[in-house]
Amino acid sequence: MMIYLDYAATHPLTPAALAAYAEAAALPGNPASVHAAGQAAREKLEEGRARMAAAFDVDPRTLTLNSGGTEGDNHVLLGAAQAWQERHGSPGHLVTTPTEHSAVLAPARHLAAHGWDVTWLEPDSAGHYSPEQLGAALRDDTALVSIHHANNEIGTVQPTAALAAVAAARGVPYHTDAVQAPGVLPVNLAEWGVTYATFSAHKWGGPRGVGALYVQRGAELPPVTLGGGQEGGLRPGTQNTAGAYAAGVALTEAAEAQPATFAHLRDLQTAFMDAVREIPGLTFNHPADGSPKVVSLTIPGADGEALLMNLDMLGVSASAGSACSAGTMQASHVLTAIGLTEADARASLRFSFGAATTRGEVQQAAAALRQAAEWSRG
Amino acid sequence: MMIYLDYAATHPLTPAALAAYAEAAALPGNPASVHAAGQAAREKLEEGRARMAAAFDVDPRTLTLNSGGTEGDNHVLLGAAQAWQERHGSPGHLVTTPTEHSAVLAPARHLAAHGWDVTWLEPDSAGHYSPEQLGAALRDDTALVSIHHANNEIGTVQPTAALAAVAAARGVPYHTDAVQAPGVLPVNLAEWGVTYATFSAHKWGGPRGVGALYVQRGAELPPVTLGGGQEGGLRPGTQNTAGAYAAGVALTEAAEAQPATFAHLRDLQTAFMDAVREIPGLTFNHPADGSPKVVSLTIPGADGEALLMNLDMLGVSASAGSACSAGTMQASHVLTAIGLTEADARASLRFSFGAATTRGEVQQAAAALRQAAEWSRG
Repeated sequence: MMIYLDYAATHPLTPAALAAYAEAAALPGNPASVHAAGQAAREKLEEGRARMAAAFDVDPRTLTLNSGGTEGDNHVLLGAAQAWQERHGSPGHLVTTPTEHSAVLAPARHLAAHGWDVTWLEPDSAGHYSPEQLGAALRDDTALVSIHHANNEIGTVQPTAALAAVAAARGVPYHTDAVQAPGVLPVNLAEWGVTYATFSAHKWGGPRGVGALYVQRGAELPPVTLGGGQEGGLRPGTQNTAGAYAAGVALTEAAEAQPATFAHLRDLQTAFMDAVREIPGLTFNHPADGSPKVVSLTIPGADGEALLMNLDMLGVSASAGSACSAGTMQASHVLTAIGLTEADARASLRFSFGAATTRGEVQQAAAALRQAAEWSRG
Repeated sequence: MMIYLDYAATHPLTPAALAAYAEAAALPGNPASVHAAGQAAREKLEEGRARMAAAFDVDPRTLTLNSGGTEGDNHVLLGAAQAWQERHGSPGHLVTTPTEHSAVLAPARHLAAHGWDVTWLEPDSAGHYSPEQLGAALRDDTALVSIHHANNEIGTVQPTAALAAVAAARGVPYHTDAVQAPGVLPVNLAEWGVTYATFSAHKWGGPRGVGALYVQRGAELPPVTLGGGQEGGLRPGTQNTAGAYAAGVALTEAAEAQPATFAHLRDLQTAFMDAVREIPGLTFNHPADGSPKVVSLTIPGADGEALLMNLDMLGVSASAGSACSAGTMQASHVLTAIGLTEADARASLRFSFGAATTRGEVQQAAAALRQAAEWSRG
């Protein structure tokens, strides 16, 4: 019996999404073709987009479909930088944070290595950034602000609307990597007032390899991949009809269930915390007001990798941090950024829940963690 | 009853590929995660890669999985250019052709607009390029050659092994967009001796949004999308387990059937040509020794768009050229490059066949074309 508690890494494809995928995959046409077969494919593609737009409360034309969160983050950072540089003739200024996903961190570091001035905002001990902090960092040559909405490792939720308002008041485009939000937290892009937002379908039960990039109407963003005119010229390549439709179907379901899911996850989070609280020395890293999807904890002196392996043996799939560090057992950059020592970061684990996770699974996982912690004390 | 003759635009997902997709999508894990769930996903991902590598006769480690042909083409052109420029401090020289897919054309034009010297080889009247021609174009500062293997509009097959050998003798990396080949033509990357090759799964009956980029061992290519360390650092982002596995399953089938499919398509191609040959003024644009998948024809004086619409009404899905021009009815750049007037290019249609296409379907389609041509004469 396997207990999967790594929903922040990826959410399994839902049965409804798989059925939608199969339905749309039966259509032979390329949505860019003008004939009837193409039109039938285009209808499914656009239904997928419309479902996502409805869930995010925006015009469907503001969503560019792509291959996922990493592509979206790169598109915004590298695309906005390229546009700025072509307009001004020289690199500008970028504001971001040290607790971003690697898909933002890596392009930001790339820009820093290519003449860009990057301000890394300093998080508080729970990973928050404040509007005041952002206001003080903005400059006349700030080309872009990029701050995630919900952190993928510790669940911190940023005050995105307030942060975006500070940027907007200075005329600076604001990007948020909101990949961890849909289905768990409310997502209302109109209320947030952001310029760009990145989403990935496999985090809400849609297929992997499908993402949506929100670009506010009137905002500027050049394509960074070049080719045919698909997706309004912003993202060339044959459109993934079945993937988009399945993503939309999964999101309709996830967005409708979001308030109930939030309550369910908060219940699981609390139950899990209560059941592991007595482990000697254990501390929690995730803020109480953050996403209910994540528990991040540290067992000082323990070897995180050994804990994970023992949990795995006991049938529990958890994580040392982001799966996107691709199997490397580096200390989490998010945990060290909020003040943990490298040793404590290495003694840390992330458990993340989904709508399908049960109370019983969480209790079993907590028992497994107590067992693994005892073994680790030797 | 709809007769789909637009396989060069996209090939429907095969039933075996859909079953494989569903099987792998049932695995919850992220292949980058170290736990058992991650490992199970990784096994399916790697089986997909291994199947593709076997079909192309290369080491699986030489295949980088991505979102498709447009991404692969961009990665090679923009990545190789970036690497050259960082090494030499200034733009270099690129050799390519005017009959490439827009995913090569557009990055090549972008480089030309950013200081790169681009040599556009001139095709013969059937769209061929010769090793002598390429040899004469190479220079000491040539950073890359990019020539497709099989043309997507007229089916011309290039002498890729001979062309790549000319580049290799001068130490110049050689890229081929081979998107139209798998399942139709033999693909043996070791024999071809190319440095880079681009593939897209939806052209061989695999899913859309899945591609493979071949990078010869020892060849240099930086990532152009930045993030986690997935795909050996070459292509970050959560890997598409189900997509890769389904692509591999579809390719095993397509590659095993390739010789039989080739013969079947040649038979359909000949039958279709014979059945439309009598249309007044009609000429064929595809070479006799090209891909058997495509018939490109011109009916001088006809309106291609009207012909297509009439064919569509008669239940036949054909195309004016590449679907990747995304609904725009521009004259085909491939046809004008091989010498057609703009008016003749606009009076041209592409019919492309798949393994599932029947003799009866092509006969019906030919009858529909005769009818549509008659209407167009008014």
